[in-house]
Order: sequence, then C-alpha cells, then structure tokens
Amino acid sequence: MSHQTKPAPLQVKAIGSFYVGGEIRTLTGLPIRHRVSTPGGPTYPVDPNGEVAVGQMYVHYVCLAAPRTPIPLLMWHGGGMTGANWETTPDGRPGWQWFFLRAGINVFISDAVERGRSGFAPYPDVYAEAPYFRTAKEAWEKTFRFGPAGSYHRASTQRRAHPDCRFPLVSFDTFMKQSVPRWDCNDALTQAAYDALVTTVGDCFLLIHSQGGNFGTHAALAAPDKVKAVIAIEPSGAPDPAKHDPSLLKDVPHLFVWGDHLEGNDFWEKYQPGARRWYEALIAAGAPATWIELPEQGIRGNSHALMMDDNSSQIAGMIMDWLLRTVPGAFSS
Amino acid sequence: MSHQTKPAPLQVKAIGSFYVGGEIRTLTGLPIRHRVSTPGGPTYPVDPNGEVAVGQMYVHYVCLAAPRTPIPLLMWHGGGMTGANWETTPDGRPGWQWFFLRAGINVFISDAVERGRSGFAPYPDVYAEAPYFRTAKEAWEKTFRFGPAGSYHRASTQRRAHPDCRFPLVSFDTFMKQSVPRWDCNDALTQAAYDALVTTVGDCFLLIHSQGGNFGTHAALAAPDKVKAVIAIEPSGAPDPAKHDPSLLKDVPHLFVWGDHLEGNDFWEKYQPGARRWYEALIAAGAPATWIELPEQGIRGNSHALMMDDNSSQIAGMIMDWLLRTVPGAFSS
Repeated sequence: MSHQTKPAPLQVKAIGSFYVGGEIRTLTGLPIRHRVSTPGGPTYPVDPNGEVAVGQMYVHYVCLAAPRTPIPLLMWHGGGMTGANWETTPDGRPGWQWFFLRAGINVFISDAVERGRSGFAPYPDVYAEAPYFRTAKEAWEKTFRFGPAGSYHRASTQRRAHPDCRFPLVSFDTFMKQSVPRWDCNDALTQAAYDALVTTVGDCFLLIHSQGGNFGTHAALAAPDKVKAVIAIEPSGAPDPAKHDPSLLKDVPHLFVWGDHLEGNDFWEKYQPGARRWYEALIAAGAPATWIELPEQGIRGNSHALMMDDNSSQIAGMIMDWLLRTVPGAFSS
Repeated sequence: MSHQTKPAPLQVKAIGSFYVGGEIRTLTGLPIRHRVSTPGGPTYPVDPNGEVAVGQMYVHYVCLAAPRTPIPLLMWHGGGMTGANWETTPDGRPGWQWFFLRAGINVFISDAVERGRSGFAPYPDVYAEAPYFRTAKEAWEKTFRFGPAGSYHRASTQRRAHPDCRFPLVSFDTFMKQSVPRWDCNDALTQAAYDALVTTVGDCFLLIHSQGGNFGTHAALAAPDKVKAVIAIEPSGAPDPAKHDPSLLKDVPHLFVWGDHLEGNDFWEKYQPGARRWYEALIAAGAPATWIELPEQGIRGNSHALMMDDNSSQIAGMIMDWLLRTVPGAFSS
C-alpha cells in the first residue's frame, strides 16, 4: 500500500518569550540630543539621560503538549547572528528548532546580549566601542568556510565555493540578512545572562554554535548539576584547562561536531585547538565526551553553518541519536 | 458537572521565519578597524569594507494545521520595540500572538527594519545618525502613559501611576528590557520592507501598533487588493488625506482602538489628530472604518501598551469580534 499522508500537526502547549539577566542602569552626563524623526522635519530636543535596560537576554520558547523529555533544549547561536539561525534555513527548509520539536523536545532559543531582540543601549558608557559587522567576504572565506581564501567575489557568478560545499549557496544573500552587529569586550555581560538562563530554566540540554560554544561550555561548568548534556557545534572557544577544572563535568556528556575544510582556514586553525584542548581535558578527567569530525565519517563538504547545510536534518538526527544513547534516562520511550 | 479540563493543545503545521526586503550593499572607504575581542587581548585589523545586507526585515510565523481563515494576521510593533511585544506579556501572561492563534488565525510577527532580528549595518553610509533610545521616564510619562507628566521617579516606590492604570507595573523593568534603539529618518527603507511583506504574503489582516500604525496604514494604501482589514492600535501616524486618496480603501475595513489618558499627554495630543484625520477621510470616502475610544465604552485605565495591559485578552476579544463581524466571509464557521 502506498499513499502519502500529511504529517500529523505538532501538539503545542505554549509559544512565548521572556527576558533574563540584565539590569536597569542610570545614564548621566550625556548631551541633549537634537532629534529629527523625518528627513526635513523639525528638530526637537531629547534627553537621553535616565534609566535604561542593559545586559538582558531575549528567550523564545515552544513547549509541547506531551514532550518525550521534561528537559528542554537551549539553542545558543554564534557571533554576529541571532536565534533566527535555528529557525527556517535560508533556502526555506525547516530548521533545527522544528527538527527537535518534532523529536519531542521543548526548544528555547535565545538572542545573545546586545543582539536581536535582546536590544542594546547605544552609549559608550555601556559599550565602549563601535560594534563590529561581518562582511560577505569574511563570512564566505573565513567564518563559514563556503570557499577557500580568495574565492569570494562581489559578483555571485564569479565566486568559487568548495566544490563539495553543502551550504545552499543560492541563498547566500538571504543568509547574510541574518547578520547583526556585535560588540567586542562584552563577554562577561553575555555570560552572566546565559548563566541566568540556566538558573531560570533548571535542567537543560545545551545546543551551542560557534561563539555560543564558548558561552555554553562555560555555562556547563557553572551549573554542572543542571546542564544534562552539551552539544557543541564548531565551538570557537572553550574553557582553558589551566584555569578551569574539567572534572566538575564528569557527569555531563559533551558532543563536539565539526564540518569540513577547516584545514588551511586561518580562522579555524586558530580557534579549533582551544576546543580540542578542552575536549582532551574532559576525557582525561573521565568525563563522557565525543569528538566528531564529519569528514572522518565520510560526510564531506559541511560548512560552519551545519544547521543550514543541505544535510542539516541528517546532522540533527546524529545529535538526537547521541542524546538518546547518552542520556537515555531523560527520555520516555 | 464541574471539572477542570486542560486546554486542548494548539495544532501547529509550521513554525519558522524568513526575511523580506533589503538588499546587499557594497561599503567602501571605511577605515580599517583595529579590533580587540576580549579585554586586554591582542589587537588585529579588520576591514569593514565589502558587501553587507541592508534594509531587510525578519518575519516569524506560526501556521496552524486547520486555521479558521486562510488569511494570516500580520503584527507590526511600534517604535523602539520588536515583535517580542506580541508574545508573552511582561508579567508572563499569554500575549496576542497566542490569543489569535487560539482563535484560529495564522500569525506573522515581524521586527521592523534595523530592529531586533532584522539587524542593522552600523555605518553612517547606511544610517547617518546615532540611534535614539527611549528612557524609562519617557516610556512612563509620554509614550506609554503609565502616569502623568512628572510622575516617573527612578525609585519604583516613588513613581505615581494613573490610579486606574491597567499596565502590570510590577513588571515595568521587564517591559523596559523589550526596548531597542531606533534610527530616525529611516521610514522609506522600513516602509519598503513592510510593502514587500504584504506582496510576499498576499491576502492578509494587519494588526499594527503605534509607529507600526503609520507603516500599516500606508501599506494598506499600497495594496488595497491584498490587505483585507486594518486594526490600528493607537497609531502614531497615518496618511495625510491631502496627499493620499482614502477612496482607494473603500473596501478595506479599518478599526482604530485607543486607550485612556491621552488628554493632557503632550505626545499623544500631538500625534492622535493625524490618525483621526485619516479616519474621518476614510468615512467621508465611504470606507468602512470604526473608531473606538475605550473609556467611552466604560473601559478605563488602558495605557499605550494595550496588548500588555491587564485586560489585554478582553481587547483582543473585541478585535476578534470586530473581524468576525466585519469580514465574515473570511472565516469558516
């Protein structure tokens, strides 16, 4: 018998959002602003001094009517991005948010401090420098590894991607539209909000990407009783074993997943070793940790945007299998 | 028989997001940036020149398995805010997103251009001036009308709200955390993205708030064949009847809803008349338009944040009743 059936609807109990962390801060001494709302319109004075919110973090959630586990999955995006990364892929396929909801897990997606819906206070008092904003060339050649150094060109027809690149390159412009500026020297504020999120949510799984990998691995160290698993997708940083004790995490399984073409990429050749050092320290301390380089499993061509690559569902499936195998007690059958 | 039943789960077909509008722009002539990622860390040069995305808009959607109408509701927030406004209220009650999903309508929530997940390119080439950021005092006394002029105080215990204020003031700090900066003189870029959203989605209802009211009433004028109803919640602007022809909208029902305490508020005494003028022009042109001032119906104390006030569900219910009564053909019974 062969007939197509529509997928059953997702049974949802709640969709919503909240803010964690941050504080109300009083700004003083800023000059009166002479504001013009509309080009050619009147000028009127605005006093920017007073109380504003600083350092808070936006968290979106979808909770299922009957999840397979009471433990939610917290998804933390990477640098210069927002939680939109985890939603629909740039070429319109369901993203990892949908995959893990379908797999029966409640999903919480945050925007890092000063990005996306978390907002930012645009004053030197709060963020000393101007923000930094990634160009298409940097995304293509360095961070996301769609092609080798020198392969980006302003004209899309003249770009040279890795021949086996799995990112949906036809949607590269749409991908760039997900970019947001980021401030440097801001890690403490952001880490505090992530730590506050874990405290607020309680037991959780962390699915962390790139810069979010650094925040997530530190958050696990700060709350090894609450973080039940860490899935680090190409983390750009991790705790330094000389400063942090990996044995605190001996009951917290860690999975590290890496794509292709890191060799010869000067950005990743600089950043991957830090994550590797932390993985080895976890292993040495007896913590359950898994290190997967997809090319070693015959899966070639993945970029840094593993959650958007054309095999994103396959990789999400590998992660789900690892979760079920590693923390089986958390799931009902 | 009296027993409590759990509400039935929401039957969801899809949750995701996409970007509309905007373009890839090439920045040139910007000085090389000397970037420091971590306090005390090394300085390295970054070239900010190249291609970046400008003017795009983030749109989040929840689509139901069996909506009562094929026409989605597009929710457009006001100035200095993001789509988070429509999600959970600051004091944790379900927001209007959830209300209208429960009522059987697919809901699309966008972040205006240069706000939230829509991102912004932080360069004078793109946005000439520094952004503007609302203080707690301005929110309290002017924009959101929680109390009269002079009633805000830095210490929460010394603030004087309107005695009948319906905003959940205990959550005022959380409300402030939803704030984001906004750029002035940017309306054309934003309007283009909203117009692109209507073109992309097709038939739609618009639920628009404050500054979003100006964009939404103009979007209806630009696409009166697609916009099937406009629900304007305290719009801070509207088309000028001397420049725009309201008879284009003779088949597009408009509902205007206003809270309390506009009298004596210098901000709203300046901005409400523009919306009133457009409403009167619609009526004169034979367009179906409704103007509701809640105090005239005996509903007192509503702030500008009607979707967060303690009677937010009551007001959403009034809007839903108006929709069912005004465009009954759009809904299955």
